[in-house]
Amino acid sequence: MAPVSETHSIITLTTDFGMQDPFVGSMKGAILQINPDARIIDISHQIDTFDLFDASFLVSCSYKYFPPGTIHCIVVDPGVGSERRPILAVSERYMFVAPDNGVLSHIYEQEAITRVIHIRESKYFLVNISQTFHGRDIFAPVCAWLSKGIAPMETGPEIFDYIRLELPKSYVSEDGKSIYGQVIYIDHFGNLLTNIEYNLIEKAFRGDMSRFRALIEGALIERFCYAYTDLERGNIGAIAGSQGYLELFASKDSLSKRLGIVKGAKVEVFLE
Amino acid sequence: MAPVSETHSIITLTTDFGMQDPFVGSMKGAILQINPDARIIDISHQIDTFDLFDASFLVSCSYKYFPPGTIHCIVVDPGVGSERRPILAVSERYMFVAPDNGVLSHIYEQEAITRVIHIRESKYFLVNISQTFHGRDIFAPVCAWLSKGIAPMETGPEIFDYIRLELPKSYVSEDGKSIYGQVIYIDHFGNLLTNIEYNLIEKAFRGDMSRFRALIEGALIERFCYAYTDLERGNIGAIAGSQGYLELFASKDSLSKRLGIVKGAKVEVFLE
Amino acid sequence: MAPVSETHSIITLTTDFGMQDPFVGSMKGAILQINPDARIIDISHQIDTFDLFDASFLVSCSYKYFPPGTIHCIVVDPGVGSERRPILAVSERYMFVAPDNGVLSHIYEQEAITRVIHIRESKYFLVNISQTFHGRDIFAPVCAWLSKGIAPMETGPEIFDYIRLELPKSYVSEDGKSIYGQVIYIDHFGNLLTNIEYNLIEKAFRGDMSRFRALIEGALIERFCYAYTDLERGNIGAIAGSQGYLELFASKDSLSKRLGIVKGAKVEVFLE
Repeated sequence: MAPVSETHSIITLTTDFGMQDPFVGSMKGAILQINPDARIIDISHQIDTFDLFDASFLVSCSYKYFPPGTIHCIVVDPGVGSERRPILAVSERYMFVAPDNGVLSHIYEQEAITRVIHIRESKYFLVNISQTFHGRDIFAPVCAWLSKGIAPMETGPEIFDYIRLELPKSYVSEDGKSIYGQVIYIDHFGNLLTNIEYNLIEKAFRGDMSRFRALIEGALIERFCYAYTDLERGNIGAIAGSQGYLELFASKDSLSKRLGIVKGAKVEVFLE
Repeated sequence: MAPVSETHSIITLTTDFGMQDPFVGSMKGAILQINPDARIIDISHQIDTFDLFDASFLVSCSYKYFPPGTIHCIVVDPGVGSERRPILAVSERYMFVAPDNGVLSHIYEQEAITRVIHIRESKYFLVNISQTFHGRDIFAPVCAWLSKGIAPMETGPEIFDYIRLELPKSYVSEDGKSIYGQVIYIDHFGNLLTNIEYNLIEKAFRGDMSRFRALIEGALIERFCYAYTDLERGNIGAIAGSQGYLELFASKDSLSKRLGIVKGAKVEVFLE
Repeated sequence: MAPVSETHSIITLTTDFGMQDPFVGSMKGAILQINPDARIIDISHQIDTFDLFDASFLVSCSYKYFPPGTIHCIVVDPGVGSERRPILAVSERYMFVAPDNGVLSHIYEQEAITRVIHIRESKYFLVNISQTFHGRDIFAPVCAWLSKGIAPMETGPEIFDYIRLELPKSYVSEDGKSIYGQVIYIDHFGNLLTNIEYNLIEKAFRGDMSRFRALIEGALIERFCYAYTDLERGNIGAIAGSQGYLELFASKDSLSKRLGIVKGAKVEVFLE
């Protein structure tokens, strides 16, 4: 069971609600009405509509930097109002509150989850539950109650059949000559984040990264860099991204726009 | 008079300032310089420029979820620097600080306002008042002082001639066969929020929502749903929105874009 | 040396990271993991990519409204991972943490900086430093430690060769007949902020602003206003902006779009 810190009750929010509508403000109100001392931190509200994978990935990049006891609330919820379950996943350090639709898939992979609970105890919900906005009516209030120290098990029974999305994995070719992966995220600078672990590549080259070559959508990348500024403006290169995965970029430019690359694009790194 | 909570001094902000410019940050600084313990929550800063109705509606969706004692600051202020008055509207639970231009119209309708005050006491303003940014120079500081516990009446005299916009109402046709309303808000998912109370419709159909039919811009909507997922992708339907009003939507799509519908579009619900 | 307030440890953030990616959330986590009591305020995360001048100007508009003891963190950092230094600039009232690339240039001009320090003490960084995200790995943690009360000098040695960008200045023509300046910022309303001090103009006209005339990109502006509403819709005029500089605007319209004006456009104010 996660120890609930009583000195700092931080709740992070990640949604696809955008910043324009009343949704995020209403969730924050619902939290503060139950726990006026809760401290709410936005991770992102600009997840692409209904993009479970994106939300899952994005939270997995940020959650571990927060102090133990933090409650992470993720609401990307195309099935709101249907039979899909609200769940609470608990680790030694954190709690994750979300719909059971796979939006915690990266978390299940990175964090040692000790228990997943089907949130069912309606006394921790708002009194009137809408069919369209469980972020406000269920997820926010449950987070607020958790931040006040109720035990996770009070919210409902443990379950084992929660949904995990299959996440795309990189792999080494049979002849051992290449690693194949793909672009899993494109940041707003237009940099391409892949699912190829940097460590694997470094090991393959025994640290001699001058031998690095990679192919993406027909474009050959021959420069491995240790800083974005190693490249002259306009050139393209690779670098170890801030999550420990291979990242491809264009110097002071958007590589995504430059090559017309979208999420899912295949990447091949030549190992010899 | 609103009781000012001393344990939590929450100030919400709603503006049309956007998130890019220095305006919102300056307001937050101005608040914190007067009351470093104030807790500032953004509702939205992406109100369409000068759209008083939108701001009014949006705040009306969110304000009531906040704990009693919350101060709601709304700055959509095309008349900044002119003779338009800064006002403070007080209810049993909340305070609302805004320009007197109608931006509180939905609040006047939903919340039992006990007093409206013309904010005039300049000792609660910043020392130098610009002609173009009263959000920073007047509204933020007044909110900060209120959050520190000054009595609302200290900010100025009560007034009765404050401005209320006429809000579009839905109505039943003379022959009793239809309810007419309109689209009053379009969220970033492209869902259409109407001003037709869901309760009215449910009563008219005696709960048998299978008889539901509505017309919008020539498109007939024949499905009433209890969850967005009741519809197959691409179909259009109706649902009870999270504010208790009829909402029209396309399954996993933007109904607004699909039908080219903008705010103000007429909606007819057939009662028989 | 700046006195570090122990009662309120406010850290403001200004970046070009946008609101969609995991970057801002990760920085906030990194701060809170070190100082769970830190209070984080966003100034803007929508600085144009790598636009040092914009970031510098924007922070200079906001920073002085915050209470003494506030730590301002500015991360627009095209040189991340290279030899460019992380620095801490200290004044009587504030601390500024940023890369040494000129992004504090307006601050150096407006605030009496008593010391600039090369942040070098890695015990105040995260344990693993990426090559691409010093916002999370260096700048955020250092701000958190400063907010916990470490002395600025503990972060590294004083330096004197920090980078200052040359900021465009307005000037009076040799014949004394005009002031020449330029548009240095365009806000999201489309108003044009210039670098011409309003006080200079007012003095030149001895307060008789009816004599005001200015030229921008071939358009003559003949109206000086004391409120945006002094103009009928569609007209263009000038006003004293909220930073004390001349601002040009179109009534209820975007002057920037209307005249196709971008940053850097020349402005001439006729003094007679």
